[in-house]
Amino acid sequence: MNETAKAFTEIETVALDDADSAIVICDQTRLPAECTAVSLHTQKEIHDAIYRLMVRGAPAIGITAGMAYYLAAKEHLTNAPDLSAAALTDLLVKDKTYMASARPTAVNLFWALDRMERVYLSVKERPHAEILSVLRAECEEIKAEDIRVCRAIGEYGLTLVKPRDGILTHCNAGRLAAAKYGTATAPIYLGEERGYHFHVYADETRPLLQGARLTAYELYHAGVDVTLICDNMSASVMKQGLVQAVFVGCDRVAANGDTANKIGTSVVACVAKEYGVPIYVCAPTATIDMTCSSGAEIPIEQRRPEEVTDMWYQTKMAPDGVKVYNPAFDVTDHSLIAGIVTEYGIARPPYREAFQAIFAEKEQKQKEKH
Amino acid sequence: MNETAKAFTEIETVALDDADSAIVICDQTRLPAECTAVSLHTQKEIHDAIYRLMVRGAPAIGITAGMAYYLAAKEHLTNAPDLSAAALTDLLVKDKTYMASARPTAVNLFWALDRMERVYLSVKERPHAEILSVLRAECEEIKAEDIRVCRAIGEYGLTLVKPRDGILTHCNAGRLAAAKYGTATAPIYLGEERGYHFHVYADETRPLLQGARLTAYELYHAGVDVTLICDNMSASVMKQGLVQAVFVGCDRVAANGDTANKIGTSVVACVAKEYGVPIYVCAPTATIDMTCSSGAEIPIEQRRPEEVTDMWYQTKMAPDGVKVYNPAFDVTDHSLIAGIVTEYGIARPPYREAFQAIFAEKEQKQKEKH
Repeated sequence: MNETAKAFTEIETVALDDADSAIVICDQTRLPAECTAVSLHTQKEIHDAIYRLMVRGAPAIGITAGMAYYLAAKEHLTNAPDLSAAALTDLLVKDKTYMASARPTAVNLFWALDRMERVYLSVKERPHAEILSVLRAECEEIKAEDIRVCRAIGEYGLTLVKPRDGILTHCNAGRLAAAKYGTATAPIYLGEERGYHFHVYADETRPLLQGARLTAYELYHAGVDVTLICDNMSASVMKQGLVQAVFVGCDRVAANGDTANKIGTSVVACVAKEYGVPIYVCAPTATIDMTCSSGAEIPIEQRRPEEVTDMWYQTKMAPDGVKVYNPAFDVTDHSLIAGIVTEYGIARPPYREAFQAIFAEKEQKQKEKH
Repeated sequence: MNETAKAFTEIETVALDDADSAIVICDQTRLPAECTAVSLHTQKEIHDAIYRLMVRGAPAIGITAGMAYYLAAKEHLTNAPDLSAAALTDLLVKDKTYMASARPTAVNLFWALDRMERVYLSVKERPHAEILSVLRAECEEIKAEDIRVCRAIGEYGLTLVKPRDGILTHCNAGRLAAAKYGTATAPIYLGEERGYHFHVYADETRPLLQGARLTAYELYHAGVDVTLICDNMSASVMKQGLVQAVFVGCDRVAANGDTANKIGTSVVACVAKEYGVPIYVCAPTATIDMTCSSGAEIPIEQRRPEEVTDMWYQTKMAPDGVKVYNPAFDVTDHSLIAGIVTEYGIARPPYREAFQAIFAEKEQKQKEKH
């Protein structure tokens, strides 16, 4: 693992390095104080980077996992050029299980690993060089698709707002969570390109402060008019009529539209409902899980108390020994969500039917492409 | 100014010391890391303790200011036993102006100083020993009244909940803000005395973290089952059915029931509405301002950005130069409030009529007393 200081505009969220032997990420745990490119060479380094949130956000995690799968195959074949297809398959199954354990709630992690595995299984009997070439192309395609998907979400999202609108966002579903544009920030970035001049309010998003450290950072450096607020100030800004729409990302959307996203999203949704502000979930179709019938089936990761009591502070901020409840996510009920913006259009309630139409559209477009 | 480490259970928020020559406070700027009793001997020490938030909370500031007035008179008469009534009055006017400058927005500070001055003026021609005896009794009465008021609020509040209920509170309207019991915590402490075993959720309350530093501290050390959460986790706990009631304090209640309290209170109120949880404002009648017709008339103090971006952190938590919106309070609309608990009973909507009945009851009780 080696590190280089970078200017924010010169660094990608996730990329394969020039030597094609490591994943280079922008270490998000050091923002906004330092903008640092970190090279991850081993599966453990990649796993730990995902676990420690050095790279985070569903699309970025998917891209990282895809690249990790490719690098795992490359490492095995470099270390043991005579490896049989069966032996390589066994090793990659283990690698996949290990990588999947880095963030047990990140559906994109499993999705990307499954996708890489399917591609691998379809070429496993081919020459090693061909296997690696196919896997490399596939993980780069995951990244290219993310850019296309986010841009499409941005275009649809932009139809929901007007120039100079106030937009509130929670956590970071931005460029730093994806390859480019982000999901929740895609309408903001596209709007900025077209002179919409939105006024953006970024929730700081305790306990890990992704809104303050990442969203405020990336929007500010992109020249967007962004104002940082604490999570408990959303009612204050909405009551004053300063917010016309809320855009948030998501970790997983159930078939009924229930949405798991960063803790606090459902608080914003309750506040938005009270003040008549629509909340839109920006969701690549890859995060919509039609096998999950409602949010009740989505497991919520509990994280360690120190994130709340100690992590950022110079001095102890809570009494020793006090209990802490620290869920990473919450589930926003579909009834609170005005629309779910995908790369194939905007789903409106009832969501199950809307998603079926969107997936049909997706299938149709993919048929046309091939 | 001298200091002694104390166990939290052995220290009062504010008290006259045994030698009757200093105010002993629990230094709240050092909580929760250290529990320290600090003796304040001079007017300057007392002024600085209020200014630096070593003592805070409307009732506690009022009690401190009352005791400061008494100690000022005592010091003048000790230093100059032959002091004329006119000369003493001049000195006390100056002392009062000086003490009032410690927290220019703290209404209770002026209220307590005015009350002490009125009493002083009514006895200023009497023998010195009698003047001091009357002033001492008056400042102790301010404290005793606070205890009676909070206890009465606790008794009424306790009728709104059942044993083992989950209770959520925001910021600190606890023992550390008052002489004993606190306002929002009064039902919790009284319930604890009677074996109710509540499960309390304390919002950490960004940006100044009074919930984490003070409420979680005082409840934990009182043996209450308290769980610390971030401000954006209230929907998560309420959705799981873990909260049966919300109790909060208030800075000022308008005649229509609109309530100004620590920023974030109205967020909790929106969330509580969505999940069908009643929110109760614990309000001594002294904080109900019948001359203020609605919350729109309550000015909201804006505080400095560094409280959000830098204050507690080891490293920079937001990009340099980003705009910050940092209001100290928000106004919770009366339509969101299930009841306002005073020392003379529980006001229910419509609040204007309910407050009139409560003030009539107060007048009646005070007549009966005299």
